[in-house]
Amino acid sequence: MIQNKVPITVAYGDGIGPEIMQATLDIIQAAGANIEIDTIEIGEKVYNRGHSSGIEPHAWDSLRRTKVFLKAPITTPQGGGFKSLNVTVRKVIGLYANIRPCSSLHPFVETKHPKMDIIIVRENEEDLYAGIEHQQTDEVTQCLKIITKPGTEKIIRYAFEYARQYGRKKVTCFTKDNIMKITDGLFHKMFEAIGQEYPDLEKEHWIVDIGAAKLADTPEAFDVIVMPNLYGDILSDVAAQITGSVGLAGSANIGDGFAMFEAIHGSAPRRAGQNLANPSGLVLGAVQMLIHINQADVAQKVHNAWLRTLEDGIHTYDIFKEGNSKQKVGTKEFAQAIIQRL
Amino acid sequence: MIQNKVPITVAYGDGIGPEIMQATLDIIQAAGANIEIDTIEIGEKVYNRGHSSGIEPHAWDSLRRTKVFLKAPITTPQGGGFKSLNVTVRKVIGLYANIRPCSSLHPFVETKHPKMDIIIVRENEEDLYAGIEHQQTDEVTQCLKIITKPGTEKIIRYAFEYARQYGRKKVTCFTKDNIMKITDGLFHKMFEAIGQEYPDLEKEHWIVDIGAAKLADTPEAFDVIVMPNLYGDILSDVAAQITGSVGLAGSANIGDGFAMFEAIHGSAPRRAGQNLANPSGLVLGAVQMLIHINQADVAQKVHNAWLRTLEDGIHTYDIFKEGNSKQKVGTKEFAQAIIQRL
Ligand SMILES: CC(C)[C@H](C(=O)O)[C@@H](O)C(=O)O
Ligand SMILES: CC(C)[C@H](C(=O)O)[C@@H](O)C(=O)O
Repeated sequence: MIQNKVPITVAYGDGIGPEIMQATLDIIQAAGANIEIDTIEIGEKVYNRGHSSGIEPHAWDSLRRTKVFLKAPITTPQGGGFKSLNVTVRKVIGLYANIRPCSSLHPFVETKHPKMDIIIVRENEEDLYAGIEHQQTDEVTQCLKIITKPGTEKIIRYAFEYARQYGRKKVTCFTKDNIMKITDGLFHKMFEAIGQEYPDLEKEHWIVDIGAAKLADTPEAFDVIVMPNLYGDILSDVAAQITGSVGLAGSANIGDGFAMFEAIHGSAPRRAGQNLANPSGLVLGAVQMLIHINQADVAQKVHNAWLRTLEDGIHTYDIFKEGNSKQKVGTKEFAQAIIQRL
Repeated sequence: MIQNKVPITVAYGDGIGPEIMQATLDIIQAAGANIEIDTIEIGEKVYNRGHSSGIEPHAWDSLRRTKVFLKAPITTPQGGGFKSLNVTVRKVIGLYANIRPCSSLHPFVETKHPKMDIIIVRENEEDLYAGIEHQQTDEVTQCLKIITKPGTEKIIRYAFEYARQYGRKKVTCFTKDNIMKITDGLFHKMFEAIGQEYPDLEKEHWIVDIGAAKLADTPEAFDVIVMPNLYGDILSDVAAQITGSVGLAGSANIGDGFAMFEAIHGSAPRRAGQNLANPSGLVLGAVQMLIHINQADVAQKVHNAWLRTLEDGIHTYDIFKEGNSKQKVGTKEFAQAIIQRL
C-alpha cells in the first residue's frame, strides 16, 4: 500500500541554516521519509525586503496547510525595528511547548557528564518573550513578564503527560518564586497542584539559581524539567552544551494541531558557507518530526545511523577531540557518513 | 599605635546562618581583626513578629552608623505578604554592585573545571528584582523588568574599573537583547559605549543563553563578567557550584559609602543545627570585608589559613571526595582547623 506523502513546510534559514537543512533533508529522504516538501523563505532576505517580522504573508498559508514546519536557524537583524521570527512563529501558531532533549553520548562524544539524559520542557509563548517593552523616560526602560494560568497549566500538564508517556520517573520545576511571588509563584503553585494528579511520578522543585547550579554540575540528577520560557532558553543551551556541544540538540515546538522542529542553536553567521557546521541538532529535530507524522520507523533508522556515525568517531569540529574522535569532517561528509549507515 | 576598632554590623541569620557566622567571627577575631561588632536581628524571628520586611526599624540605625554589614543567609517565609530582606537591604542602602568571585582550588577541591578564575559582577538593584508584580485578572499575572541608564552605567563602569584595578584582562557582558531589545539592549549598548573608555581591556559580549552554556562548559574562557541582576543571580550559583560547591563563594555588595558581605548560598534550613555547613562562603565574604575596612593584612592571613586547610584535605561534606579529601569535618572543626593555621 502506497501512503500519500505527508506535506511539510521547510525553511532553509540563514547563516549555517542552508547547509544543515540540505544535510538533514538528504539524510531523511535517503532513509525513506515519505514527505512532500513545500519550501518557504524566511529570515534575512525577507527582513531586507521590508517585512519586519521576517516572514511573508503567503508563507503562513503553507504553514496553515501542512501544520508541520522544519525550520533552520535564522538571523534577526539587530535594531529595534525587527521582531524575532522564532518568537512570532511560536506565538502565531500557538506552539506552547518546546521540548529539548539533552543526552550525553558517552563514550562516543566527549563530555564531563557521561550519565546525563534529560528533557527540558520549556514554556514557549509567555514570560518576557511577550515582547512588551518600552522606554518610559530617557533614563528608564521596562519589559513586561507575563505568566498566565492557562499557559502555565498547558505546559505543566504537557510535562507530566510527556513523562508518563515516555516512561520517565521524575518531573522537576524551576522558578524564582522567592522573588517573583506572583508570576513565578503561579507557575510553582500550578506545578504542585497539577502534580497531585500524577502520583506515579516523582515531583521536585528548585529555585532556579541553585537548580541551574545543580544542572550544570550534576545533570544526571534530573529527568524531565519544566520551566518558564526564559529559564528554559538559557538552561537548555547549558544542558545541550555540557553533553558535548550545543550543536547536538534538536527541539520540538508543539501546539494544538501544529508543530515546528528545529535545532536549538542559532545561525552562526561567522561559520556560514564553510561546510563546518554540525547538522545534528536539526537532524534530531527532524527525527522528532518523523515521529510526529507517524513515520517512527524512518525516525528510528535515521537516529540509529546518526548514532553509529558518532560511535565510529566521525565528528564535526565542535565535538572533535584528539584521541576520542577518529575523523574530522564537514557538514556534507557527516551527512554522507550517516546516509552510508542507514 | 593602637587603632580604633572598626564598627561593623553583624546578623546571624536563619538556618545554617548562626553556625557559619559563629565560625567566621571566631576565625577573623583569632586572626586579629580589629572590629567592634554590633549585632542586629533579621529574618525569620523578625518576620514572625509582624515586620513584613524581616528587619526592625532600629536595625537600620546600626547599618547607617557602621556602613559595613556582615550578613548570614536568612529565610524569607513563603507567601505573598513577605518581602525579600536581601533585596530590601540591597535597595535601601543602594548596594548596586554584587561582586562574586568564583575560582577553582584545584587540586585541593575536586572540580571538573580546574582552571576557572572568574569574577561575576552582578547588577544588584534593578531588573525583575524591582518587585513590581501584580495579578491583572484571575488568569494573568505580570512582573515588571526595569533597566535604567544610571543603574546600568554604574555597574558597567564598576566592572571595568574592577578589572583594571585587579589586573584582569577581559570584561564580558551577557544580555538577551535579541529579544529584549530595549531593556537588555540598553545594557548591551552602554557596555559597548563605556567599554570604549577602556582600550586596555578586552571586551566581549554573548547572548546570555549561549554565554551561560560556555560558562558551564569552559569557564576558563572568562575573566570578569558583567550582567543584569537575574542572570547574575542564576549564573553566579552555576559558576560557584562548578568550582566544587556553591558553599565556596562569598560576595561583596557595594554601594556609595555602604557595603554588605555575605555568602552567595541560602540558609539551607534542612541542614541547620547539625554542624554540617561549609562556612567558606561567609569566610570569603568576611575576607572581602576586611579588605574593604583597610585590614588587608588580616584578610590575607585568613585567606591563606583557609587555603591551607583546604590543601590539607580538611573538608566539609559538600566538598568531601573519597581519595581527594583527607578528613570530613563539621563547621566547628573546619573553623578550628583554619584558626590553627593562622
Ligand atoms: C533566537 C532566539 C529568539 C531563540 C530564543 O530565545 O528562544 C533561541 O535562543 C532559542 O532558544 O530557540
Ligand atoms: C535569596 C535571594 C533573594 C538572593 C537573590 O536572588 O539575590 C540569593 O539567591 C542571592 O543570590 O543572593
